[in-house]
Amino acid sequence: MCVLGLGLIGGSLMRAAVTAGREAFGYNRSVEGAEAARFDGFSATTDLTEALAWAAEHDALIVLAVPMPAVSLLLGHIKDTAPDCPLTDVISVKGAVLEEVRAAGLLDRYVGGHPMAGTAHSGWRAGDARMFDGAPWVLTVDEHVDATVWAQVMRLALDCSAVVVPAKSDEHDAAAASISHLPHLLAEALAITAGEVPLAFALAAGSFRDATRVAATAPDLVRAMCEANAEQLVPTLDRALELLHHARQSLVGKNSVAELVEAGHAARTRYDSFSRPQIVTIALGEENWREELAAAGRAGAVIRSALRGPDSR
Amino acid sequence: MCVLGLGLIGGSLMRAAVTAGREAFGYNRSVEGAEAARFDGFSATTDLTEALAWAAEHDALIVLAVPMPAVSLLLGHIKDTAPDCPLTDVISVKGAVLEEVRAAGLLDRYVGGHPMAGTAHSGWRAGDARMFDGAPWVLTVDEHVDATVWAQVMRLALDCSAVVVPAKSDEHDAAAASISHLPHLLAEALAITAGEVPLAFALAAGSFRDATRVAATAPDLVRAMCEANAEQLVPTLDRALELLHHARQSLVGKNSVAELVEAGHAARTRYDSFSRPQIVTIALGEENWREELAAAGRAGAVIRSALRGPDSR
Repeated sequence: MCVLGLGLIGGSLMRAAVTAGREAFGYNRSVEGAEAARFDGFSATTDLTEALAWAAEHDALIVLAVPMPAVSLLLGHIKDTAPDCPLTDVISVKGAVLEEVRAAGLLDRYVGGHPMAGTAHSGWRAGDARMFDGAPWVLTVDEHVDATVWAQVMRLALDCSAVVVPAKSDEHDAAAASISHLPHLLAEALAITAGEVPLAFALAAGSFRDATRVAATAPDLVRAMCEANAEQLVPTLDRALELLHHARQSLVGKNSVAELVEAGHAARTRYDSFSRPQIVTIALGEENWREELAAAGRAGAVIRSALRGPDSR
Repeated sequence: MCVLGLGLIGGSLMRAAVTAGREAFGYNRSVEGAEAARFDGFSATTDLTEALAWAAEHDALIVLAVPMPAVSLLLGHIKDTAPDCPLTDVISVKGAVLEEVRAAGLLDRYVGGHPMAGTAHSGWRAGDARMFDGAPWVLTVDEHVDATVWAQVMRLALDCSAVVVPAKSDEHDAAAASISHLPHLLAEALAITAGEVPLAFALAAGSFRDATRVAATAPDLVRAMCEANAEQLVPTLDRALELLHHARQSLVGKNSVAELVEAGHAARTRYDSFSRPQIVTIALGEENWREELAAAGRAGAVIRSALRGPDSR
């Protein structure tokens, strides 16, 4: 495989894939990142053409692991040098990447991916071979996806000890807006609000530290994911604002936040008891396989060991 | 000392104080809590009068460790049975408790307290003798407080391995609104919003779990703290809503959340580098000691070892 971008996620992916016995070659734009990877014993270059030529020669799976704004440029190079390689990505929005891939004419070899893992840190050195252990890793099942490529990306995710969640790109983005992008905006607003109150930082303890943890993420990364998913994030943010406004009115008018607090507790309790049954019977490439996987993923089911597919029949 | 209420905080306090070599007697309304404490080797009763008679006999420090709605009733019994005992509390709002204590005529022996520690669990069994290790423990320095009582409560907090932060009650409440009560409301709204999106719980990982952790707190406890601090919480919530509305408009109009994200990151960075110098030169009971402690606390300073006071002169 060929990993383009050796930051937190791409770097963790290199480590996890090599630990699982895979051959991997990495590209990073900055000399520091590529040198750090080589120092740790990995194959890496700052020469994009070299990396893509290697991928083309080995028919390697190419993984886009760069921030959203860099995707378009990389796709142009892939189209030139390695247009027939299977292609995936680990970017936190799926609709926007899908449109870029479509525009580049690379759709038939592409399956979108998003491992739901990370920390507030960034760069090669922040990576960890065990980053994906037990984490949900979304693979897209939009209408265009090819079963053979899907099987390859599924095996990569499973090799990294993740559990695979099949999902449509737009459904992924709506979910990501509510569980990832909205929490970022709330954490930023909370950090600012507290920072304006004398004594607040002096008293802040574990719960404030947890609640603002993601506000320590590099602003460019937060902007990239939120702004690329604006279409889904705006209605999600509006819903949260509606709930908070309603609670504000209730607190002022009735000195009660009962409605918000009870519904919030109930939702969190449902989350705690959310089960993840295993998908075992769906075979990749069979009739309606994409729709069946999307329905199973929506119901909470995950893939824990490789499904039968085109190569296994 | 006499601890009234053996839930998460009161129960942890019993354990920490006894571990530090103190004699402690506990009261709990429910038989289950008192029996669990006795089973673990502590002295505890469900008979409030027995507990308060013990406190009066030993001139013991009484600690109110019950939810806000139960405070008024307990103060009436204290006034009857143990009116001369030094009195503190561990409740998360300070202005509302102060008013109840004033109304009960017990102000001259009272110093408000609030250890900034806890978990999402509740009850005796959730307690931990190390709950307060390194945690900020606010002691109020409002105009009425007596230096001798203050010294007693300070020594209790230090015995529990906390660091003492002196603060005025109203400044504490404004800070608590921003670092504790607002985070609760945001977590509730986030849990509800995500719970309405198909696939969201299926994809949720560590950051969502952290961001909604406090939504697992029992609704009654969350309501008690938020509703008792409405006066400070409403303007704090309004500020957060203003920031989020502004970000929403910017996201829709300019596809940018730069302003919110950069200010949030800057605030969180300031929090990470917030230092806690030690208060050493202020002596309890000397001229302006309350004002000097309040100013030091506001600047981030804390008490790590007992200050000189009335008993040490």
